[in-house]
Amino acid sequence: MTIITLTTDFGSTDHEAGVLKGVIWSISPAAKIVDLSHDIPAHDILEAALLLWRAVPYFPPGTIHLAVVDPGVGTARRGIAAQLGDYSFVGPDNGLISLILERVTEAQGKPALVQLDRPEFWLPDVSHIFHGRDIFAPVAAHLASGITLEQLGSAIHDPVLLNIPRPVRTSIGWRGQIIHADHFGNLATNIHASQLGPTTHLVITVNQHQIDGLVSTFGERPPGTLVALFDSSGSLAISVVNGSAKQLLGANIGDEIELQVRI
Amino acid sequence: MTIITLTTDFGSTDHEAGVLKGVIWSISPAAKIVDLSHDIPAHDILEAALLLWRAVPYFPPGTIHLAVVDPGVGTARRGIAAQLGDYSFVGPDNGLISLILERVTEAQGKPALVQLDRPEFWLPDVSHIFHGRDIFAPVAAHLASGITLEQLGSAIHDPVLLNIPRPVRTSIGWRGQIIHADHFGNLATNIHASQLGPTTHLVITVNQHQIDGLVSTFGERPPGTLVALFDSSGSLAISVVNGSAKQLLGANIGDEIELQVRI
Amino acid sequence: MTIITLTTDFGSTDHEAGVLKGVIWSISPAAKIVDLSHDIPAHDILEAALLLWRAVPYFPPGTIHLAVVDPGVGTARRGIAAQLGDYSFVGPDNGLISLILERVTEAQGKPALVQLDRPEFWLPDVSHIFHGRDIFAPVAAHLASGITLEQLGSAIHDPVLLNIPRPVRTSIGWRGQIIHADHFGNLATNIHASQLGPTTHLVITVNQHQIDGLVSTFGERPPGTLVALFDSSGSLAISVVNGSAKQLLGANIGDEIELQVRI
Repeated sequence: MTIITLTTDFGSTDHEAGVLKGVIWSISPAAKIVDLSHDIPAHDILEAALLLWRAVPYFPPGTIHLAVVDPGVGTARRGIAAQLGDYSFVGPDNGLISLILERVTEAQGKPALVQLDRPEFWLPDVSHIFHGRDIFAPVAAHLASGITLEQLGSAIHDPVLLNIPRPVRTSIGWRGQIIHADHFGNLATNIHASQLGPTTHLVITVNQHQIDGLVSTFGERPPGTLVALFDSSGSLAISVVNGSAKQLLGANIGDEIELQVRI
Repeated sequence: MTIITLTTDFGSTDHEAGVLKGVIWSISPAAKIVDLSHDIPAHDILEAALLLWRAVPYFPPGTIHLAVVDPGVGTARRGIAAQLGDYSFVGPDNGLISLILERVTEAQGKPALVQLDRPEFWLPDVSHIFHGRDIFAPVAAHLASGITLEQLGSAIHDPVLLNIPRPVRTSIGWRGQIIHADHFGNLATNIHASQLGPTTHLVITVNQHQIDGLVSTFGERPPGTLVALFDSSGSLAISVVNGSAKQLLGANIGDEIELQVRI
Repeated sequence: MTIITLTTDFGSTDHEAGVLKGVIWSISPAAKIVDLSHDIPAHDILEAALLLWRAVPYFPPGTIHLAVVDPGVGTARRGIAAQLGDYSFVGPDNGLISLILERVTEAQGKPALVQLDRPEFWLPDVSHIFHGRDIFAPVAAHLASGITLEQLGSAIHDPVLLNIPRPVRTSIGWRGQIIHADHFGNLATNIHASQLGPTTHLVITVNQHQIDGLVSTFGERPPGTLVALFDSSGSLAISVVNGSAKQLLGANIGDEIELQVRI
């Protein structure tokens, strides 16, 4: 009863997301399939990489993560499968696993990766524009049925990695960037709790607004207050209590955040 | 094979809804998980309470309903689990079960409720802002695995209840309110078929429009006609045949509806 | 472990889609339920028929497809169940199966159809406005549990068929129509690869734009280029590389497309 998760930019109005499940169950009827999201913005690989980085640790060991955000479909870009710690990944080789790969490599060393070059594990007819259906879903299903990573393709050691913006040290603390706005309008940054070490006080400046100190949760301040906190994935985030920081600040992905650290 | 349903305001673009499932299956691999909705408007407890009230009777006995619309997360608000007739509920104690509780109490007397104060049934690390993942999903999974309500926490008798608007008797009939607009633009009111008793004729006034008599279904009138009917949950509703009553009337939640009853 | 797929226009904010699953599992606890889409535009039978036509071939034999886009609910329109090749269908008799029926009939002759006239396979109380919950979901669940098509109702031979626009032969090639715009803004036409036979060159004219030749996949041209290709279902489609053809062309369902064929 292996779990296969799905992360795509297919949206909810068309047949694509459902068809992945039909293909998987045609090959591996006992697989448990779960949608992470089909509403990744079109072609937004970083957004999918972030979602996977946040979600993966909460699934049981052995879970297979299938992700298809694939603007390069049908070109020379490779398909890959990977063993990333306790989890497997199947999808295009375009950086979707960048963040997970980094975490796994730090903890456990370089993981095993293969490029998908064994058509016997694909659908018989492979279209040029829907490898999710014709290659990746079948491969994930075969993995769930007991086929090994090594059987699926030839080993590779050079996966494509995203050029992810990193926070930089400044004379007063850190300079980072907004990298995600969630459904509620909370803004996550690329500054992580684990980077900061022990601090007594933080002052945050973002889009001409200054936030003095962190809160632990939203309810510590009245509705409408702009606050900063570490979100449930450990990222420094900017929020408005019962409101949208994205809207209040007119903020966008890539906007800078200045962090003044007092120890 | 216990069923766990999910009702949240997490939306479909982020990791939260998927992560609930990973957590549940990590604890209770055989649970069947089903989404009721993750598109409850942000922080709208009444909307989630109405959805649960409509959906719950159609699930098999033993189903566990997990609902996380939780603006008070991380504050003093309690987490609860409840046995509500044939069903269980897990979520924040903020009124989400108000409508089900009322129905169950009428039929079967006061139900059993506990506050979630036993961390051994939670994830080891509990964030301040995502109790859905760290407390409620694990608790629902433990319930599905056979842990009893009593083991999950201490009994309480004072759950938070929503202040839900009630229809009032008038000299000519009833005055109520619009409490829900669905995806099609149908407007549900807080007047229920069971309140009216036998009637021969109803005249409804809403936002300066008058509707003379009820229909049984949309197809009794031509497309574009404004009609009133009892919806599939027994609520008096205002609709436009093949159209949107919300749009035609410019109606909002809270708008008044006057009902003239002729017996 | 029969699979039941769901295709509706119920949206994601209300209780209807979830309730279908509760009803199915109350009758057939072992059924595997999968959402194809609940975001079919309201009352858009053609859109649902197209989605089913694209999705159905990718599910295992024995799958039951339940579709509820049902503007005529509660009127004289019939409910039906059908055996369509390896698959079953349950839903209103309003043309939802038109495209699948055509394909199956060509391949295997006329399929078996029944009208749903046996209330013993429905919920005890049938509303006038939610036959998805009260009739179709229970019938699909009974089919999954081993009840035969013949038991569900009386045979019929005159299912309602959609009047689907067909491409026509012209002196220079074909004239067709845009019949679908997907989530990415790709425009599918009613011209199918199987109709054209061997060709050496195609020139496509759509909304005053001319496209000279087909590509195999998006990556053959730079981002922003307007291209034509056969999509993953074999339909001639108009796309913009990493963009939206719908937006670029200001195109709508029903717009004409001219195809000049050189052999």
